[in-house]
Amino acid sequence: MEHIKKISIIGVGLIGGSLALAIKARQPQITIVGYSRHADHLHRAKSLNVIDEYHTGIQPAIQGADIIVVAVPLGAMAPIFAQIKPYLEPQTLLTDVGSAKQSVIAAARHVWGGNTPWLVPAHPIAGTEKSGVEAAFATLFQQRRVIITPLPENPPAALDTIDWLWQQTGATLIRMNAAEHDAILAATSHLPHLLAYTLVDTLVHLEQTQYPPIFQFAAGGFRDFTRIAASDPIMWHDICVANQPAICAALQHFQHDLTQLTAAIESGDWSTLLTLFQRAKAARDQFTG
Amino acid sequence: MEHIKKISIIGVGLIGGSLALAIKARQPQITIVGYSRHADHLHRAKSLNVIDEYHTGIQPAIQGADIIVVAVPLGAMAPIFAQIKPYLEPQTLLTDVGSAKQSVIAAARHVWGGNTPWLVPAHPIAGTEKSGVEAAFATLFQQRRVIITPLPENPPAALDTIDWLWQQTGATLIRMNAAEHDAILAATSHLPHLLAYTLVDTLVHLEQTQYPPIFQFAAGGFRDFTRIAASDPIMWHDICVANQPAICAALQHFQHDLTQLTAAIESGDWSTLLTLFQRAKAARDQFTG
Repeated sequence: MEHIKKISIIGVGLIGGSLALAIKARQPQITIVGYSRHADHLHRAKSLNVIDEYHTGIQPAIQGADIIVVAVPLGAMAPIFAQIKPYLEPQTLLTDVGSAKQSVIAAARHVWGGNTPWLVPAHPIAGTEKSGVEAAFATLFQQRRVIITPLPENPPAALDTIDWLWQQTGATLIRMNAAEHDAILAATSHLPHLLAYTLVDTLVHLEQTQYPPIFQFAAGGFRDFTRIAASDPIMWHDICVANQPAICAALQHFQHDLTQLTAAIESGDWSTLLTLFQRAKAARDQFTG
Repeated sequence: MEHIKKISIIGVGLIGGSLALAIKARQPQITIVGYSRHADHLHRAKSLNVIDEYHTGIQPAIQGADIIVVAVPLGAMAPIFAQIKPYLEPQTLLTDVGSAKQSVIAAARHVWGGNTPWLVPAHPIAGTEKSGVEAAFATLFQQRRVIITPLPENPPAALDTIDWLWQQTGATLIRMNAAEHDAILAATSHLPHLLAYTLVDTLVHLEQTQYPPIFQFAAGGFRDFTRIAASDPIMWHDICVANQPAICAALQHFQHDLTQLTAAIESGDWSTLLTLFQRAKAARDQFTG
């Protein structure tokens, strides 16, 4: 991809910043331009050598870019697309890193009023409970998966370029359709986050009403289990808005299974309970992700 | 506690083995005797220097002991108590490490047919998803909490001795009544384990019926969240049997909160959702256990 000389990162946080660092490590000749509404964020990103230059205006930030990576919270995707639209150049490809894909595609088609062959939606399945450019590191995506959800109107060359972009990070690339992506991520990522938030909130209620010292008796299992409840509330609010139907379906599956487990415990159906634990442990033991 | 010369550990697994190692590190003059039904377990514990000697018969294992620590799964407590009863000597104190306390106390009172002043129930809040003596280490309890749930009939000297025992491990000791212990642990430990098992099982169902590759798209958050689903199924089966009422109450609290969260997402009540995420994150950020 010798023709790629300039990549603009819109939103230089954990994901955008880590992608910038991964590209700079493998392709130091490419210029990485950062954009944010906040000059201090960009200044920090520049002083951390995450980006080469930056602009707080969208037009200079994307001018002459071969690829624009939109790495903002899902709720900011549509406004950013609207800002990009007047200045998008014919040679420029667009990709995003949103954790839900149907809503991003719908937002883009709404902004552009139809097909968007220059947009190749993607989702790197990586992250930590931390956020911000200070948490970015070049190897975040190594041995992680990046799901590309191509549009029917994407030309093969556009897909090749965005594949190449993510291959620079050491990630494994997978293609699937956006609806399948959203259903799978609702179950594997969005659901666990909602359960962690809910569990912590249940304990907050119990602490307030019944057992004041409850958190001090939580141990290592609780710590691991709820680490993801320290994630950015705005980001997860946006994910729920963006992936509402698939998340509701995942919650219904889980509620059904939890009701069955509760019934087994209430009725003393211990053999059903043991079978469930054994089946879950076997599946978990296989998982090394 | 100069008079403590011999401690018998009944069940030399992760908890019993780690306690043995902690005692040996601080009090090398004390003889640690191991008991198990399985000679190979004991042989392994001896060759790992976790115990000084061992017996597969209960009588020689507890003969002359100053303290007997019963560190078996909750389901084995009552049978072990029944085995101990004919040989329990007047100077010997008994303690246990069960994750539920009311059922252990009830089992002991049933076996002995009344008050058991020699039994000081305890629960070290520590552990990993691993089990077995190979996973034991001397610092497992350091900076962890050990909850002692004294019986009304315990003489002060008995409480002092069991306090001393756990102080050797570097743990912080707390006393509370058994019912409060069981309710708090149901919420902080038993509930998260049940949620982790259920989530993995929900994904097993989705993998079998809808999305064959689902587990390969689970990432770090899922890994942390479900690590505890790799815990020993028999142990968790026993905990559910032993702490059934408190676990059912905790499940009801959680189900109520999850139903409210689901309703907020289904109805698009995004400000309620954001408030919940922010409240939970604030509570989780405070927790450093």
